[in-house]
Amino acid sequence: MMSDISSTIMEVSKTLQRVNMYPFFDAAHYILMCSIVKEDTAQSAGTSAFSRRHPFACWLASMLMCFSGSILGNLLIGEPLVTPFKHHRDILLATAIWYVINYFPFDLAYKVAKFAPVHLVVCIVKEVHRTRKIYDGVGVAYKLYPNAYLIVIAIGVFKGSGYLEMRLFERLIRGIWIPASNEFLQPSLLSSMIIGIHDPFLPFENIFCSLFLGGLADALKRATTSGKPIQASAAPNNNGSSSTAGKTKEKKNE
Amino acid sequence: MMSDISSTIMEVSKTLQRVNMYPFFDAAHYILMCSIVKEDTAQSAGTSAFSRRHPFACWLASMLMCFSGSILGNLLIGEPLVTPFKHHRDILLATAIWYVINYFPFDLAYKVAKFAPVHLVVCIVKEVHRTRKIYDGVGVAYKLYPNAYLIVIAIGVFKGSGYLEMRLFERLIRGIWIPASNEFLQPSLLSSMIIGIHDPFLPFENIFCSLFLGGLADALKRATTSGKPIQASAAPNNNGSSSTAGKTKEKKNE
Amino acid sequence: MMSDISSTIMEVSKTLQRVNMYPFFDAAHYILMCSIVKEDTAQSAGTSAFSRRHPFACWLASMLMCFSGSILGNLLIGEPLVTPFKHHRDILLATAIWYVINYFPFDLAYKVAKFAPVHLVVCIVKEVHRTRKIYDGVGVAYKLYPNAYLIVIAIGVFKGSGYLEMRLFERLIRGIWIPASNEFLQPSLLSSMIIGIHDPFLPFENIFCSLFLGGLADALKRATTSGKPIQASAAPNNNGSSSTAGKTKEKKNE
Repeated sequence: MMSDISSTIMEVSKTLQRVNMYPFFDAAHYILMCSIVKEDTAQSAGTSAFSRRHPFACWLASMLMCFSGSILGNLLIGEPLVTPFKHHRDILLATAIWYVINYFPFDLAYKVAKFAPVHLVVCIVKEVHRTRKIYDGVGVAYKLYPNAYLIVIAIGVFKGSGYLEMRLFERLIRGIWIPASNEFLQPSLLSSMIIGIHDPFLPFENIFCSLFLGGLADALKRATTSGKPIQASAAPNNNGSSSTAGKTKEKKNE
Repeated sequence: MMSDISSTIMEVSKTLQRVNMYPFFDAAHYILMCSIVKEDTAQSAGTSAFSRRHPFACWLASMLMCFSGSILGNLLIGEPLVTPFKHHRDILLATAIWYVINYFPFDLAYKVAKFAPVHLVVCIVKEVHRTRKIYDGVGVAYKLYPNAYLIVIAIGVFKGSGYLEMRLFERLIRGIWIPASNEFLQPSLLSSMIIGIHDPFLPFENIFCSLFLGGLADALKRATTSGKPIQASAAPNNNGSSSTAGKTKEKKNE
Repeated sequence: MMSDISSTIMEVSKTLQRVNMYPFFDAAHYILMCSIVKEDTAQSAGTSAFSRRHPFACWLASMLMCFSGSILGNLLIGEPLVTPFKHHRDILLATAIWYVINYFPFDLAYKVAKFAPVHLVVCIVKEVHRTRKIYDGVGVAYKLYPNAYLIVIAIGVFKGSGYLEMRLFERLIRGIWIPASNEFLQPSLLSSMIIGIHDPFLPFENIFCSLFLGGLADALKRATTSGKPIQASAAPNNNGSSSTAGKTKEKKNE
């Protein structure tokens, strides 16, 4: 039974490595990226006027998001940043999707893409696309730096979800600068894109944080510094909960 | 007659390719770049005190502007960013012009450079310099990426007017950060540097924008959503004009 | 006597080139870098909560500071930015020091590192480390660009004190953006890290600034423009002192 499941997984992963990402898997990725830019623009400007008034900035921001994995990966390993713009087929597909998402009459294309069943399919296809990108990125990084597992992980992360780090620069292109909301401060949950489920590792992360990243040390400090009985009953509660509650709140914000 | 003109153009272009850019053409470029930094500093700080209080930051900002084409081009194609600083002759000339523009007694050098007839000559020489830089940049990019015309165009743009994109970082060196005024949002007119004429392509751009970049789609939407006669007479006017007027205003702002 | 001193210096420098930087010299560097991040975080956030709420951003910011010389140097000469993350031994040592500085119970590790005699030793060891890094950086740059002394100097500066320029980006990782306080505007004094002594070159810099960087030109201008006796007695004092006093004040701010 167990070997049955593992052999099925092996089959699926082998198939996945041979499936052509173009056009459907890439398209799902571009749809999500262009939607992110469109939504962020609407939030910042209040209206959808940005795509009308600054079409070039809108296009460039969307392209940066669509090819963020390659661009950031190339920056880290010292390759030319323009490499993704060599592939005209990809650029054309991304541009077509950008155009349809932003300028279709009645915003119909965007609304269809956000319609729950369609959105679910797009997200699932995008997750397959992400898996493949991570696989490819890790492969390239492993060839360049055989023993440097930190670099391999970093390249894999950027290939898989570089768009989250790219947002800072994509917003800069659109004239907006929000340093306080970068991904390093508040890592996103991948699964929350679809149905908003919570991070399954959250309890373990919280335990790890309270044990090793300050929680235990802070508790020790409180235990020794609070000598008076009134403060002792009040202060630990406040401080203690703020330390872990802060962590939890941060996780929920994502 | 027609072949006469075209053969003259061919002659001029052939001559231009052989003309040495150093020192006169380069000097015109450096004069304009140092003036841009000086003017922007005066605008931001209110006085000319910046060049007195932060000479190194002022010099570095001016150098970044003078060699912005090379630096940005090198960043995109993965070459060392410091390459322009290899050429001591160019750096020395740029430094001399920076010194004279910023520290000449009575601001005389700057005022002469801005004196209308002199400024006109400097601008014309700079346009020739720009043409040559674009030609060289496109040549290099075409060798590296033979079929990637998007990259060739991008490198040509950066070589020709990279200083407009570099301003964001040049201002950062001077401690100023204005993300809302980058070039991708409000592309400049090249000819407006000399006599402020308007973009000859503006009418065509406006027609293209109203047809394809939202104008038509928005009009369709308005036509269907505004059922009531009073709103129908008012709303399209407001929205319609704001869409194209926004585009026009943006162009005039430059 | 004089040859005695110079031969001693030669001996010391030869020894220094052969001394292994790992682990003690590197550790001193990492201790100072992690302390800088910790202090800046406490200043910005008001408490030490940042390392508790954003451990990953805190770690990444500390690593960027610890390896800032390599990262900035690699950026300038077009090498992969991730190269320092290849050396696991260094990363592990830096991570261990980051952990101890930030999460040791009662903040004991940080307080010991800041205890005056310990801090003095750490700073002295760090200066030796800096000397070696500059020596290595200049060596590498000289091989790559044999005659470009400007590049050699720039690489030497970044290897020796790249962390000062890296602060802008390290703060960005932590969601803070302070463009007005970058190093190009207000170069730091290296010796001030230990006992706060003043720049021995300050008088010469002030003389140079008043002679060549505007002081003389401004004085000339004032002398000619101020015709009236009352203004002539008041204005030069105010303007003249603000020009040099500004320079002095700027130096003292560091």
